[in-house]
Amino acid sequence: MADEKLPARSEDFSEWYNQLVLRAELADYAPVRGCMVVRPYGWALWENIQAALDRRFKATGHQNAAFPMLIPRSFIEKERRHVEGFSPELAVVTIGGGETLAEPLVLRPTSETIIGHMWSKWIQSYRDLPVLMNLWNNVVRWELRTKLFLRTLEFYWQEGHTAHATREEAERETRQMLDIYADFAVTDAAIPVIPGRKSEAEKFAGAETTYSIEAMMGDGKALQAATSHFLGQNFSRAFEIQYLDPKGQLQYCWTTSWGLSTRFIGAIIMVHGDDQGLILPPRLAPIQAVIVPIFRNDEEKAAVLAAADRLRAALAAAGIRVKLDDREGVSPGWKFNDWEMRGVPLRVELGPKDLARQSCVVARRDRPGKRGKSSVPLDGMTGAISRMLEEIQQSLYERALHFRDSRTRETPTYEELRSAVETGFALAFWCGGGECEARIKEETKATMRCIPLVQVEASGHCVVCRRPSQERALFGKAY
Amino acid sequence: MADEKLPARSEDFSEWYNQLVLRAELADYAPVRGCMVVRPYGWALWENIQAALDRRFKATGHQNAAFPMLIPRSFIEKERRHVEGFSPELAVVTIGGGETLAEPLVLRPTSETIIGHMWSKWIQSYRDLPVLMNLWNNVVRWELRTKLFLRTLEFYWQEGHTAHATREEAERETRQMLDIYADFAVTDAAIPVIPGRKSEAEKFAGAETTYSIEAMMGDGKALQAATSHFLGQNFSRAFEIQYLDPKGQLQYCWTTSWGLSTRFIGAIIMVHGDDQGLILPPRLAPIQAVIVPIFRNDEEKAAVLAAADRLRAALAAAGIRVKLDDREGVSPGWKFNDWEMRGVPLRVELGPKDLARQSCVVARRDRPGKRGKSSVPLDGMTGAISRMLEEIQQSLYERALHFRDSRTRETPTYEELRSAVETGFALAFWCGGGECEARIKEETKATMRCIPLVQVEASGHCVVCRRPSQERALFGKAY
Repeated sequence: MADEKLPARSEDFSEWYNQLVLRAELADYAPVRGCMVVRPYGWALWENIQAALDRRFKATGHQNAAFPMLIPRSFIEKERRHVEGFSPELAVVTIGGGETLAEPLVLRPTSETIIGHMWSKWIQSYRDLPVLMNLWNNVVRWELRTKLFLRTLEFYWQEGHTAHATREEAERETRQMLDIYADFAVTDAAIPVIPGRKSEAEKFAGAETTYSIEAMMGDGKALQAATSHFLGQNFSRAFEIQYLDPKGQLQYCWTTSWGLSTRFIGAIIMVHGDDQGLILPPRLAPIQAVIVPIFRNDEEKAAVLAAADRLRAALAAAGIRVKLDDREGVSPGWKFNDWEMRGVPLRVELGPKDLARQSCVVARRDRPGKRGKSSVPLDGMTGAISRMLEEIQQSLYERALHFRDSRTRETPTYEELRSAVETGFALAFWCGGGECEARIKEETKATMRCIPLVQVEASGHCVVCRRPSQERALFGKAY
Repeated sequence: MADEKLPARSEDFSEWYNQLVLRAELADYAPVRGCMVVRPYGWALWENIQAALDRRFKATGHQNAAFPMLIPRSFIEKERRHVEGFSPELAVVTIGGGETLAEPLVLRPTSETIIGHMWSKWIQSYRDLPVLMNLWNNVVRWELRTKLFLRTLEFYWQEGHTAHATREEAERETRQMLDIYADFAVTDAAIPVIPGRKSEAEKFAGAETTYSIEAMMGDGKALQAATSHFLGQNFSRAFEIQYLDPKGQLQYCWTTSWGLSTRFIGAIIMVHGDDQGLILPPRLAPIQAVIVPIFRNDEEKAAVLAAADRLRAALAAAGIRVKLDDREGVSPGWKFNDWEMRGVPLRVELGPKDLARQSCVVARRDRPGKRGKSSVPLDGMTGAISRMLEEIQQSLYERALHFRDSRTRETPTYEELRSAVETGFALAFWCGGGECEARIKEETKATMRCIPLVQVEASGHCVVCRRPSQERALFGKAY
């Protein structure tokens, strides 16, 4: 795996990404066009993402459940904008048990419709509200241009769905979940994000308001890392999700939905990786530290392996996800490259000389070469490793933040916007009009990523039409 | 939910089951025939099952991964017996993105074929072996007669898949996983099981040997609770899964697969439940103890709720999964019934009189009425609750074991077998012939569940043809 070098990230970002995903054994191409196999190392990363999110969802009162993959085609058609948005992307089951089905079934592209159908049975009274649910599952969208993790026919995600008695409560929920995504991205994935509101053109099919967190990838392009939708009463009216209020009046619920997918793994790769491969933020890394033993003969081998295993046990006991790489038939140098490709945050080198000194060499993945190496006494390794993992977590975040800020420009003029989106983000006043937005997209290939929730200034002029404007919007070319 | 009584378990077991699943809010019928929605309470139970198994899988070196749901139709046809077994049950996607597909895709009924395809790429050398993988996912089988959890078109499960260099190692793996399932069933689910080998007629489509664990339900019928398959080289030959051995010779791998599904939830219901509803084994129960506060006025309410919340916090801090039921508008008696329906192992009643005595009343779900009630001092509740949960776990197992043993008979004659399978299991010598097995099935509706791995006696005569026989087989009517 580690024999050849990757294409240089700065020269061919796209091919660098494709090769990295395969060679770090995160995922592979499935036999069906556009589908992917998530390999154990990639899935372990996803499990850590799941745990970090699930903890936050449960702490805010959400419960997991499972809804069927198969949805009657007619359900998708009940909400006007929903069917417009999703129809072109549907996979349809027409045969079951050897017979042609009376009504074709679609593979869920998302579950608002089937959830709406069930909620209309389950929700009766204001006492049943709020309903706070989350699903971890797989969905299918028939995409034409696919890329591992970023856009695949089938992908894995969580989709949260909630129903509330009032508009205010549902809006609060929508924003709460956006905050949770942002906190996860920053704290666990070391990815700085810009939370904001989507334009009418970019919002979810069936939403009243869509919020997203937007991140800058290593090539300056934008990636929508998670979304949270305030659905108003669109789905509750389409599916008759009603409740009796305390006065005995029948009311429609207010609903929300929000999701984060395996696409996020693509963001981690593209934000942190370098020419040697992946760099994983320690909090999400399946392996936080790898021990590579070094020896020249059987005598050295016995002593080194014994010490390496003691070290492994001590680190594991302290809750550090550690692996001892005792593979035979490959050299230490080959192992170094292999673990660098896989982005393990810390490498511990342990040889006879180290043993004699009762120390070892620790190499930080985020600082290539000598600059990232230090000698650490074996006594006290646990504390040292824990501290270094925290430092790497922090340092990755700061590096990504610095990179993003260095490539984000406030652009008072259209020409400046045009130039800014060639290498990163443009922040520009925008009148709110669909025509100005469409012109930017048409002429620069950049889309409006969001209207950031945090706004520095109060007023200016639209970067396209010069009409007075109250808000800056974020533009960038997007994945 | 708790307003009406369930049908009596002893009178209409099937309808008792159906109603219990709905009223305990474990699952509901989906709009598509034969599909189910797993509601939060049912999914929380499944998550506990997942955690108990996943821990065991990882401790034995298995890694989770994810393979696509969509499989080219031609893959299923590569292994002769596999296609015979699964063809009648396939759901087929023929349209994607509005276009008719050149090759129809099937929704995985199980993943041996697509895994075989990928392994043939990934596995090169003996150094790549063994490959030890597990998938947690959803599969689709177009069943005609469905029942919530027991048999649904889409269900959730884990499917383990492993590849080995030698037959012996693969056989060892197959048996190891059977042991893990048995240990999980006994230790965590309090369900006694009989591990054994399936007959040729009952084995997995494509397996060389299938093992299963068989459990007796509360109506005396059998349920196959998990299976483990030794696949020989059947799939490695069909998919060219080969490796270079240390001598440089190309060899076919030996593979296994093994699975446990949401069907297991049906077993828990049918083994432990009673006329009042579900009874959950404490180790898997989403809620192990529920506190029901009792009061008549606001003054009492304030004091009782404060004490109840302190108790909740103390129990939660000790790692007990506890819930305080402070719902308004429903009586304590209604709550008692509701939690009995949901099978929570312990109910803690706390009222003003209890507070005055600094004690509370604890009711065991497995012992209805006064017999299961005891007064426990508030001081030392944590220890008392933990002990009682352990007692319930043990007592549920013993009760189920006693029930099974009381309904399992050694049957030297065919007439005795015929009578035994009307109420439970028959253990009978069997010659190993498919004709004798088929005759039993035809005439008694009982199938051969397994040839138990533990055999008491060495020889006898086949219960049907009287030929000499070395092994007893287990017969029963099955779900």
